[in-house]
Amino acid sequence: MLNPPRVYEDFTPGDVFSFTVPALTDADIIDFAGRYDPQRFHLDADAAARTHFGGLVASGFQTQLLCFGPFCREVLVHAAAVGAPGIDELQWLRPWFPGETLDGEVHLLGKKPSSRRADRGYLDFELVAGCDDQPVFRMRWTVIMLTREGANLHSEES
Amino acid sequence: MLNPPRVYEDFTPGDVFSFTVPALTDADIIDFAGRYDPQRFHLDADAAARTHFGGLVASGFQTQLLCFGPFCREVLVHAAAVGAPGIDELQWLRPWFPGETLDGEVHLLGKKPSSRRADRGYLDFELVAGCDDQPVFRMRWTVIMLTREGANLHSEES
Repeated sequence: MLNPPRVYEDFTPGDVFSFTVPALTDADIIDFAGRYDPQRFHLDADAAARTHFGGLVASGFQTQLLCFGPFCREVLVHAAAVGAPGIDELQWLRPWFPGETLDGEVHLLGKKPSSRRADRGYLDFELVAGCDDQPVFRMRWTVIMLTREGANLHSEES
Repeated sequence: MLNPPRVYEDFTPGDVFSFTVPALTDADIIDFAGRYDPQRFHLDADAAARTHFGGLVASGFQTQLLCFGPFCREVLVHAAAVGAPGIDELQWLRPWFPGETLDGEVHLLGKKPSSRRADRGYLDFELVAGCDDQPVFRMRWTVIMLTREGANLHSEES
């Protein structure tokens, strides 16, 4: 975390973060599927070839995690983020195939202070990622971020 | 996959699947965080102890994956599921701490045939999981499932 970390006041609607997700290999997809999502089109190249996908495709959860990763490592861990209440929208718009690099952006759509607690506010982000001008994944979610007052109050935490 | 697999017609709104997710250790949480979600309250026990969580908590994405796993392995992989368009609602209702076993259910809320393709329909599921009568996680999403006609048409796939 930066010292001091970025706080609620440091984020401005319209902020954009660009990222790239390196292409997956068959082995990357199969390894993740075996741990978390063993559907045949994620786990078994031969079985996947006989489905309408025509071959292995990444688990949607793997897509979600790997698109979140760069934003987490470059932005969230250097900020006074304290969690998220949930995901408001999430769409898998087309399969993510091995060998395809994803390009994406995270946009800060809006922000609002907590109505109950002066130490925090809510940041509404939208992440979109795609390949060859085709959208692959989209997620809209809210991050709880400490205000400057909150970060100072909790400064023993940082 | 069962032969023949369960198809769209075999699912009835009201169907319930119960599951348990074994408790995580600190090491389980830290390992996942290092790969996918390196926020300090998932990655570092000492830093986590100084946050409002009071200690390590599982990444919400780890919660999501591990709650989905039993339903995937016991139901989806034995059915003619062909993916999911997205997630309609997802809420992290309280942190998931090390040592806590989660109990959950997946409910089939409703189903509808595709208006465009006779080979498939949509199943709307809700997953809820918790601990000590406190809800921890909730997700509502749609699975695309082949109809019997669709599964026969694509029988070379199975």
